[in-house]
Amino acid sequence: MAEKITPRSADYSQWYIDIVTNAKLADYAPVKGCMVIRPRGYALWEMIQQGLDGLFKQTGHVNAYFPLLIPESYIKKEAEHVEGFSPELAVVTHAGGEKLEEPLVIRPTSETIIWSMYKKWIQSYRDLPLLINQWCNVLRWEKRTRLFLRTSEFLWQEGHTAHATAEEAEEETLRILDVYRRFAEEYMAVPVLHGVKSDSEKFAGAVRTYCIEALMQDAKSLQAGTSHNLGQNFAKAFDVTYQTRNKTLDYVWATSWGASTRLIGAVIMTHADDKGLILPPRIAPTEIVIVPIFKNETREAVLAFSRKLRDTLQPGFRVRLDEDDQNTPGWKFSEYELQGIPLRVEIGPRDMEKGQIVAVRRDSGEKIFVPLAEASARLRGLLDEIQKSLFNRALEFRTSHTFRVSNYEELKKLLDEPGGFIEAGWCGDGACEARIKEETKATIRLIPLEGTAVATAPKGTSCVVCGKSARHLAIFGRAY
Amino acid sequence: MAEKITPRSADYSQWYIDIVTNAKLADYAPVKGCMVIRPRGYALWEMIQQGLDGLFKQTGHVNAYFPLLIPESYIKKEAEHVEGFSPELAVVTHAGGEKLEEPLVIRPTSETIIWSMYKKWIQSYRDLPLLINQWCNVLRWEKRTRLFLRTSEFLWQEGHTAHATAEEAEEETLRILDVYRRFAEEYMAVPVLHGVKSDSEKFAGAVRTYCIEALMQDAKSLQAGTSHNLGQNFAKAFDVTYQTRNKTLDYVWATSWGASTRLIGAVIMTHADDKGLILPPRIAPTEIVIVPIFKNETREAVLAFSRKLRDTLQPGFRVRLDEDDQNTPGWKFSEYELQGIPLRVEIGPRDMEKGQIVAVRRDSGEKIFVPLAEASARLRGLLDEIQKSLFNRALEFRTSHTFRVSNYEELKKLLDEPGGFIEAGWCGDGACEARIKEETKATIRLIPLEGTAVATAPKGTSCVVCGKSARHLAIFGRAY
Repeated sequence: MAEKITPRSADYSQWYIDIVTNAKLADYAPVKGCMVIRPRGYALWEMIQQGLDGLFKQTGHVNAYFPLLIPESYIKKEAEHVEGFSPELAVVTHAGGEKLEEPLVIRPTSETIIWSMYKKWIQSYRDLPLLINQWCNVLRWEKRTRLFLRTSEFLWQEGHTAHATAEEAEEETLRILDVYRRFAEEYMAVPVLHGVKSDSEKFAGAVRTYCIEALMQDAKSLQAGTSHNLGQNFAKAFDVTYQTRNKTLDYVWATSWGASTRLIGAVIMTHADDKGLILPPRIAPTEIVIVPIFKNETREAVLAFSRKLRDTLQPGFRVRLDEDDQNTPGWKFSEYELQGIPLRVEIGPRDMEKGQIVAVRRDSGEKIFVPLAEASARLRGLLDEIQKSLFNRALEFRTSHTFRVSNYEELKKLLDEPGGFIEAGWCGDGACEARIKEETKATIRLIPLEGTAVATAPKGTSCVVCGKSARHLAIFGRAY
Repeated sequence: MAEKITPRSADYSQWYIDIVTNAKLADYAPVKGCMVIRPRGYALWEMIQQGLDGLFKQTGHVNAYFPLLIPESYIKKEAEHVEGFSPELAVVTHAGGEKLEEPLVIRPTSETIIWSMYKKWIQSYRDLPLLINQWCNVLRWEKRTRLFLRTSEFLWQEGHTAHATAEEAEEETLRILDVYRRFAEEYMAVPVLHGVKSDSEKFAGAVRTYCIEALMQDAKSLQAGTSHNLGQNFAKAFDVTYQTRNKTLDYVWATSWGASTRLIGAVIMTHADDKGLILPPRIAPTEIVIVPIFKNETREAVLAFSRKLRDTLQPGFRVRLDEDDQNTPGWKFSEYELQGIPLRVEIGPRDMEKGQIVAVRRDSGEKIFVPLAEASARLRGLLDEIQKSLFNRALEFRTSHTFRVSNYEELKKLLDEPGGFIEAGWCGDGACEARIKEETKATIRLIPLEGTAVATAPKGTSCVVCGKSARHLAIFGRAY
């Protein structure tokens, strides 16, 4: 219940854990670094899956499934890829009671197994583009973990596409970046910056990594989705060529992109408060909960009225009626606030007489009296308002935590207090980037785009570290 | 294309592989015994998931997700369970660059990890029943594998429920058995027998295993879903007790149940023919494909007409229009027959003039001329007929391959020719069952139910092996 939640102001990390465990979204598993996604957390994941999957299919992608286990030699075929992932691999050495000739690794991501299949499937330009996505579990052995945000096993989707030209691959990479941006902003009500990663932060094996970054309530950044232009790196590692229209042979161009159960963490840390979760209506498994308020003598009448309302609202709304007799209405109010259901509808005998219902917004606590005849239209309107208002509140928070600085001392000060996204000139040298990271724990979250190109710094801007002429304005921040 | 498919009469096993690979449902993976589910196979799995998931939710179940990796000691807590599964386990011994203190096994099924969590979640009768399902991958290291039917890694759903009484657990086990039966028959158009397994065939750790069994076109049986009453076995192994209404403590009662990507194999081997796949409309990712037939001068008009038809049919039908210019209509006809799309609609210039379309049934090859104005109603009617007709055809096959025998020689002869389900008296002794298995390779597929109880043999029936009085009429058959 609500009283068990540590306030954000007292201990932000503990507040997050309290929300996740008290709202029964997830639980720690007996295997170190792994989690159990409980039914309420999984229902949220199903909403996220549905939304994203719809956007992928609208943009021409199809789903498939590739094996969990990857021969160790495959992982090693792309040099940067293996360097990036080998410290995190879990290795199967025995199976069926025998030692395996070649160890198998549990996929940390599936580029290598997928490109070994693409070699069989792609011969000609007619086979391109190949636009495949998969929903699955992956495993990266992590030292420090946090429910949803960083766990050794997590659920995600990973898209893997193959194209005839570099231009098409770049278009695809940006198309998906835009899908992620739209999904975060329009479904999850989480405003995001989008841009490109610096070389030191890019995916192991990519030519270029694009990402979306959201600002959490503790002013730390969360990477919420990445889209990689892989160039011909994996095609070369797995020798995947195709016959062009001109009958020549060329290596195939690739992209990959992923978003994970981490998105649930983003939703929590963007919207939740000290009473519990707050779910944006568009991804809330339950949009409206009806709580009837009755005494013994009014029980049947109020329940009948409530059931009728529920039946009127279904199937246009995801609605639930709580008919439970054991708990008091007050207990239920706290419980559904904890669960983050966007709208609570209260119905008592007096409301029935007046032909009205009482709607209570989870985001603002506001009570609205709604004439029964207008229920559907008004509740839909309220849900739309909640969706917008959550987005705007998060956007205001980000705006008030975004700063442009021109010197290093200012950057350090702002990172400590109040934290947020700090925009500063950067010369493009990895040494300056590394120094900031070492001294402040902040990294370049992204370099913003201008149209589809990486933005260059305005003339006269200097690198915040070395003072040389800046190539970009980069967004610095501490991150999850 | 169709010409590459080995006829069933020539080589049934090769025919099956040809269907799976030529229709691009699945492909062999580089890891032994594993498969890649290609987009067309996965789309079919998505239809199956949607249908089953809907039935589970209708019966009060919710989804969750439990970890892939299980500590080795957990698997060993239930004696029969470990004995049954240990030969098939894949073991992770190293992770994050280090040897693990305790090896982790990849889940072959999740009873042990789930019951370790249920211990935390269940305290009182108020926490029961707990009705959880999960969709995931599992791994059982198999020696002999066959795409979809038996692969080392496969996708499935596994339900795991906890109940306050033995009666409720038994009810749940049978409720799910009925969900499986309905799904097989009403969605996949696959008639199934349902019943209980003999002790030697039951799930490792179960008190009783119920199953559905379907007869394939080669007269071999395929187990298509199992529902287990686990009694208190796992509750005892993991010490999961609850406080009853009378304030006493009791162990919890459990069920588990699963159906897998094997169902795709069942669909193929029940309905497909020598031209390719035949999909029951209710689970066909595409119900109708429109093939426009045109020459250069009629191209635009026919395409415009076809697009209008497609737009009229959407979203009521899952329909696809093939606008491709490269391949001939004849090539397309074969291709969609191979893919098993239930209805093909042909539109040529003369059909346009007559205001009609030509519908061709995949199951019978029949051509039906349909006035354009009646298209929606008539096509829906045809799809319903195809669904029914596929079921009836399979049911006739099963009926003509089901025999009642009273002596062992007859049983052996019928198993060889023509094969099928052989009903025979069985005394209930494992020795007689074992002898049949050793001498004929046939097993007891199930013992039919009478209402919800296991049927007893009519008086005077003798065991087909030992001649003693029969306890049951069992269904014998060779199986996948």
